[in-house]
Amino acid sequence: MVAVDIGGTDTKAALVTGTPEGVTAVKHSRRGTPRPVGPILDLVTELVGELRQSSEHPVDAVGVVVPGVVDEVNGIGVYSANLGWEDFPFAAELTQRTGLPVAFGHDVRAGGLAELRMGAARGLRDAVVLPIGTGIAGALVLDGRLYSGGGYAGEIGHVDVGHGEPCGCGQTGCVETVASSAAIARRYSIRTGRPVNGAVEVAERVRLGDQDAVAVWHEAVDALARGILVLATLLGPEAVVLGGGLALAGDLLIEPLRDRLDGLIAFQRRPELRLAALGDEAGCLGAALLAIDMLEDR
Amino acid sequence: MVAVDIGGTDTKAALVTGTPEGVTAVKHSRRGTPRPVGPILDLVTELVGELRQSSEHPVDAVGVVVPGVVDEVNGIGVYSANLGWEDFPFAAELTQRTGLPVAFGHDVRAGGLAELRMGAARGLRDAVVLPIGTGIAGALVLDGRLYSGGGYAGEIGHVDVGHGEPCGCGQTGCVETVASSAAIARRYSIRTGRPVNGAVEVAERVRLGDQDAVAVWHEAVDALARGILVLATLLGPEAVVLGGGLALAGDLLIEPLRDRLDGLIAFQRRPELRLAALGDEAGCLGAALLAIDMLEDR
Repeated sequence: MVAVDIGGTDTKAALVTGTPEGVTAVKHSRRGTPRPVGPILDLVTELVGELRQSSEHPVDAVGVVVPGVVDEVNGIGVYSANLGWEDFPFAAELTQRTGLPVAFGHDVRAGGLAELRMGAARGLRDAVVLPIGTGIAGALVLDGRLYSGGGYAGEIGHVDVGHGEPCGCGQTGCVETVASSAAIARRYSIRTGRPVNGAVEVAERVRLGDQDAVAVWHEAVDALARGILVLATLLGPEAVVLGGGLALAGDLLIEPLRDRLDGLIAFQRRPELRLAALGDEAGCLGAALLAIDMLEDR
Repeated sequence: MVAVDIGGTDTKAALVTGTPEGVTAVKHSRRGTPRPVGPILDLVTELVGELRQSSEHPVDAVGVVVPGVVDEVNGIGVYSANLGWEDFPFAAELTQRTGLPVAFGHDVRAGGLAELRMGAARGLRDAVVLPIGTGIAGALVLDGRLYSGGGYAGEIGHVDVGHGEPCGCGQTGCVETVASSAAIARRYSIRTGRPVNGAVEVAERVRLGDQDAVAVWHEAVDALARGILVLATLLGPEAVVLGGGLALAGDLLIEPLRDRLDGLIAFQRRPELRLAALGDEAGCLGAALLAIDMLEDR
């Protein structure tokens, strides 16, 4: 099948083969995401057409995932401020354009599904898969299934952890305001007056002992630990799987995060902290799994 | 069947008839809960024996629910600080003593199950049933099923909402430190030097315009609204069902709570606030439902 992950910056597509237990991308394609929804549909249609043509076997379905609030049952993109749609019937439109059955889902939850079936959350009953990028949202794996809460679940990036800084969402103290990759880069630049090329560069400066970088990193780890504590208190997950760009920092992230969480936790079930296994391919692989599940259900 | 709800103060038992969709208690019994676990088992055995003897029909099973951390799958009371047990095999012990099959569960989740099947949460897919008494914990109804998180889920009473007061659990800012019935009574007494007979009396004084009572009530409502906001952010429930002693305050609780939540909510799905339907019988009715489900599963 063809899988498409429509992101705020890039749209990734892949030709994918496999089973409900695991899939492999055999060919990739990546383009900048246009705006608004019309040009996005054109791009998805084009990517599906190209990958379909290049396939040795007939393509039998398409899986598409998007950010924002997503109604997976009815195939509707309910809301994305960033990409500019409201109540848009993606599944129906793309079925018509491609002539193929389309499975439609949420990028973070689809990535969580991929980590659950074939990645770092495999075998777990209760887990949170937490990609940390421009924003922070979690895929909630509860009793072995992805929970969507009508499309609204998992917004741990917008829980108030008490640091008091305003967030674009209108609230204050949100986890992602200090702990997302974007926030780490922005807060380092504001603090030092030196622009940086993302959180990766701040991580490098932490390794070199730059005290401003250390302070910003420390605040990010604290906010993230407090967010994970809330997840532990409400959901008792066996593990939290850290993904997205920030997880590329590896031990520099996970070791202080584990220490901070140890310092905060009281009676809660202590979640194991793991690094995600599938990198930024998780969304595409999850979209493919959604398409396979859809075909199996028929 | 016979249902038993072992509480921190009283143990309630009932002779119950019905189906998986709804049950009725036909005879009640209530005693003070002794300590530690040996005398508790004696009491439960005695209550089951009495109710069984008084029944016109043969009793085919027992349902027992307890507070604390509960392993429902293996029938084990994992931990209760208040009642003094650790890893105690309730289901096995009570099966031996009564000679009947025993379903064992968690008081709050069993109460949530009763509200879901036959009370204020009936027909909902995603909801939180939130009894507010000595403490605060929620039963999470997710995709139409009770979620237990290995026995650790739903501890919304111990989420930090920023008021800074220390909690018995070792954390600070916990919802229940200012919003539980016990906390409302305690904080009013400390503030005024006047002892009160529970949160019900504080509620009466709020109605009479006592400014200290109004201030304590207002702080409780604020903490509770912030806790419900966290539930909305992470789980997106359609409704939050308020139960326990504090919910007896009715509109005095639910109206300012709705206003405060309206003031806090940003992009989240706005949960409907409802009052529980089953009162303090919910735990017993839920225990009976667990017993019925156990018999049906055989």
